[in-house]
Amino acid sequence: MVFGTPPPPRRAAKDCNVLTIAGSDCSGGAGIQADLKTFAAHGCYGTSVLTALTAQNTIGVQGVHPVSPEFVASQIRSVLDDVEIHALKTGMLCNAEISLAVSEALTLYKNAGKPIPIVCDPVCVSTSGHTLLEPGSVDVLLDHLFPISTLLTPNKSETELLLSSRGCNFEIETLDDLVGAATRLSALSDCSVLVKGGHFISSLEEVKEFSSRHPEVEVIKQNILEENMEILLVGQEGTQNRKLVVDVLHQPEATVLFCRPRIDSTSTHGTGCTLSSAITCRLAQGFSVKDAVAEASLYTYLGILTARPMGKGFGPLNHLHSVDHVAIPSPTQVNPYPFTYHLIQGSRQIWKEYVEHDFVKLLGKGILPKAAFAHFIKQDYHYLKYYARAYGLLAAKSSSFGAIQSATETIMNVINEIATHKTFCQSFGISPEELESTPESTATTAYGAYILNVGLQGDHAKLVMALMACLLGYGEVGLWLKKEASLPSSWVAMEGNPYRKWIEDYSGVHYQNAVRIGIESIEKLVVIDHPSPARLKEWEDVWLRCAELEKGFWDAAMAQA
Amino acid sequence: MVFGTPPPPRRAAKDCNVLTIAGSDCSGGAGIQADLKTFAAHGCYGTSVLTALTAQNTIGVQGVHPVSPEFVASQIRSVLDDVEIHALKTGMLCNAEISLAVSEALTLYKNAGKPIPIVCDPVCVSTSGHTLLEPGSVDVLLDHLFPISTLLTPNKSETELLLSSRGCNFEIETLDDLVGAATRLSALSDCSVLVKGGHFISSLEEVKEFSSRHPEVEVIKQNILEENMEILLVGQEGTQNRKLVVDVLHQPEATVLFCRPRIDSTSTHGTGCTLSSAITCRLAQGFSVKDAVAEASLYTYLGILTARPMGKGFGPLNHLHSVDHVAIPSPTQVNPYPFTYHLIQGSRQIWKEYVEHDFVKLLGKGILPKAAFAHFIKQDYHYLKYYARAYGLLAAKSSSFGAIQSATETIMNVINEIATHKTFCQSFGISPEELESTPESTATTAYGAYILNVGLQGDHAKLVMALMACLLGYGEVGLWLKKEASLPSSWVAMEGNPYRKWIEDYSGVHYQNAVRIGIESIEKLVVIDHPSPARLKEWEDVWLRCAELEKGFWDAAMAQA
Repeated sequence: MVFGTPPPPRRAAKDCNVLTIAGSDCSGGAGIQADLKTFAAHGCYGTSVLTALTAQNTIGVQGVHPVSPEFVASQIRSVLDDVEIHALKTGMLCNAEISLAVSEALTLYKNAGKPIPIVCDPVCVSTSGHTLLEPGSVDVLLDHLFPISTLLTPNKSETELLLSSRGCNFEIETLDDLVGAATRLSALSDCSVLVKGGHFISSLEEVKEFSSRHPEVEVIKQNILEENMEILLVGQEGTQNRKLVVDVLHQPEATVLFCRPRIDSTSTHGTGCTLSSAITCRLAQGFSVKDAVAEASLYTYLGILTARPMGKGFGPLNHLHSVDHVAIPSPTQVNPYPFTYHLIQGSRQIWKEYVEHDFVKLLGKGILPKAAFAHFIKQDYHYLKYYARAYGLLAAKSSSFGAIQSATETIMNVINEIATHKTFCQSFGISPEELESTPESTATTAYGAYILNVGLQGDHAKLVMALMACLLGYGEVGLWLKKEASLPSSWVAMEGNPYRKWIEDYSGVHYQNAVRIGIESIEKLVVIDHPSPARLKEWEDVWLRCAELEKGFWDAAMAQA
Repeated sequence: MVFGTPPPPRRAAKDCNVLTIAGSDCSGGAGIQADLKTFAAHGCYGTSVLTALTAQNTIGVQGVHPVSPEFVASQIRSVLDDVEIHALKTGMLCNAEISLAVSEALTLYKNAGKPIPIVCDPVCVSTSGHTLLEPGSVDVLLDHLFPISTLLTPNKSETELLLSSRGCNFEIETLDDLVGAATRLSALSDCSVLVKGGHFISSLEEVKEFSSRHPEVEVIKQNILEENMEILLVGQEGTQNRKLVVDVLHQPEATVLFCRPRIDSTSTHGTGCTLSSAITCRLAQGFSVKDAVAEASLYTYLGILTARPMGKGFGPLNHLHSVDHVAIPSPTQVNPYPFTYHLIQGSRQIWKEYVEHDFVKLLGKGILPKAAFAHFIKQDYHYLKYYARAYGLLAAKSSSFGAIQSATETIMNVINEIATHKTFCQSFGISPEELESTPESTATTAYGAYILNVGLQGDHAKLVMALMACLLGYGEVGLWLKKEASLPSSWVAMEGNPYRKWIEDYSGVHYQNAVRIGIESIEKLVVIDHPSPARLKEWEDVWLRCAELEKGFWDAAMAQA
């Protein structure tokens, strides 16, 4: 786990379709339920073929109903004939007939030229001790399913059972045994094999000793506090690094040990299902088996670590520990501006008070008192100085030349606007000297200083938020007045309206183009750097406050009328 | 949808357990698969009792295998006897026997004094037209299931079917019909009723006209671009606001219309399952029926809107549109500092080069050349001025008095440290004048100016990140030297070590306490304001760069030796 590694997968999780062929656990902790939750937590699309139904919970298995082999095959066909599957796993296969039906259906699929990663979790016994695979089925797995599988994920006792069925009797008691068993099963099955060490207690000392004898075996330590992490060990002395869980991955090219601290927990129901599902998701994405196992075992470990107790026995893992919730949906063609929609809809009342301000209505009618407009235009002149400075600050807070250029162009636009501003003022009898010497109103200071304060306090994104209410609101006003003016017998008068140029400026292509760029930039911002609820709240607050300050700006102008 | 509403639920989603009693759709778009995905997307723990298995896909239903009523009841007992369920839904119940078994099991549970919200989705026909409830079962629903249900969620044709089975024949053709049907079914069933308008085409005009005649009926508009959103309508003219989907919720106290733009999409397989599951999650959290429906219909709508095409027919919704992935797991008792662990583990190599620097080792042994230490201590003096200024900037970027105070206390600590620094320097023959007049080295400028640059560019959190490598690294060095010194025949010499005071300072309670506060503050930061991958990357980069600059600082000192 070094920043930035492993390399990005070949296929985004959201584009992966995965399949589990397994039993149902109505209590939701194991079986296809655990699989579907794991698929969802990884962002993959999950499908599931049922081999058996169980009535079970955290205490035990109260009943098992196998599905007919024909209907299992029928379900597999329904899925594989219609949905492109990128990786699949098998779990509880119940009996020899189902095991054979599954093997045959998948072999057919494979022979049809669609080789995909198959993870076979050879489930034999439940966590609570219930037999989930009838005796005599093991041979079917070995003869028919393993030959088409990519990776097997047996636990200690399943490994022993599988080996013994091929006349290789031995009990796993040491780390050497665990590695030896993985090697043998791999040779026997011609698959990569991950022997899960959950039922085998190891230690950092044992791993170190093993490592010294087998330097060729890679050791991947997960969540183990090592040397140089003294500051994390404070208060943890004696509890860490004692007992380890070691999973052994044997592949033809290499053997890898995955070591994690052993957790004292009863939330282990469905651990095996979860691990093999997580591996399946990673393989679908195009990870190597080793990277897939590394990611998946950490996911599963964190699932146990963060589980809340449930039920009276062995409770389920927390499959959703890695899941967060987004407040703003992704843009789509039908809904291209979800964030801007959120901002306007969420500030509905003040937004309306701002863009439908009396100032705007009277201006549209052409009957806005000149005193009000003069006050506004003079204060706007002062405000634009703050606004230009804020874009200077935005340039200083930028990370790319593109962003620096964009901020700088806005400053230049403001500077140019100032020239036309002066001309415009003169047509209202306001001389450049009067413009310059007009004292700044409280409303102007409040708004201008607020924007700069946001810029001082926050990051680039937050400052952008502070600049949006002005940009978008004037764009809205411009478009609204233009649209209304185009209607028959409209209340908006363009002919002879002393403020016609103002309306034309803000509804014009140049300004509206700036609005478009602004909207697209904040939408992109949210997609690239999705805010947490806390951060979104900050942005909403800034947007809302700026809309209020905009309204206040026009209130102050109207007070002059 | 106004910022901050609806009010926070009574129970956090992560603490909710929900149950679906429905059929299986192996292709993953409908049935318990859609339900479990929806539960996961909401953060709730999902359980599922199977009533029937289907072999189906996006094209149609290829086979149905009902589960025996006894085994359905057995599954319900397994779940309800062990897991505390906060809300449940029923979907496809297949036939009269299963419908009765489910009704009886739930009635038993309800009579045992555990009344929980029950959402009944009276599934009769699949999206593809397959009958999913045998004729004759409708009476069982009406007589046995509805009496214990909270909310029914039939679509247009199911509503017509249910009403006709009680002798009330009429076809829903207008919005008035839709509202009338909801009202009648509600009276008949004594439940709240949500009639889904997915198969009924309405318009904003029809809703407005209805509204003018029925001002008592609340209209909730979802994702509809209204007046004052002109800037969002650019490029969307003519496509928006034409056809609407209207769902009608009838409750004894009020009727509400939920209106959304109709989406032209084939990704609608499992829409009903998804909606009723999402409502169930919200009811489990303690939302009112109205708020639950509002949230759930928006969730479902976005699922259709953001779906990617899948299969040859009617594809599934995107259940995971609201789901994001967290990079840093939540702290637990066993794993209290996951973010700090992530930082150190992710920067493993440079972190080791920093805290295990030759400078540190020689200092521990007491044989560090005085020239190296003198260079270090003089440059550290200059560095601390940057450091104090950075905390000043941090105070300026703070939002609470607590944060302002914390930053200010650090400045005061540095000021005090400066005094002991001077005394310490004098014991090494460095006068206050020499200390003050020593030119700043490039390494010092690089580090100090980098921190202030981060502070200028980013927000409070990012600046905190820039201050952590120094705080934590020195804490690590202090603890490491102290631990090593305590071992028998250690390489760290405390007796007669000219740098003993330095070691004692950084391993001492005062400094270590500051380290603890620092670690806890960044862990809390991540929990409260979980960073997006893009933002986390920025933080990692800052941490990594600071660790490099720390190493560079000691490199420069060693170059003097």
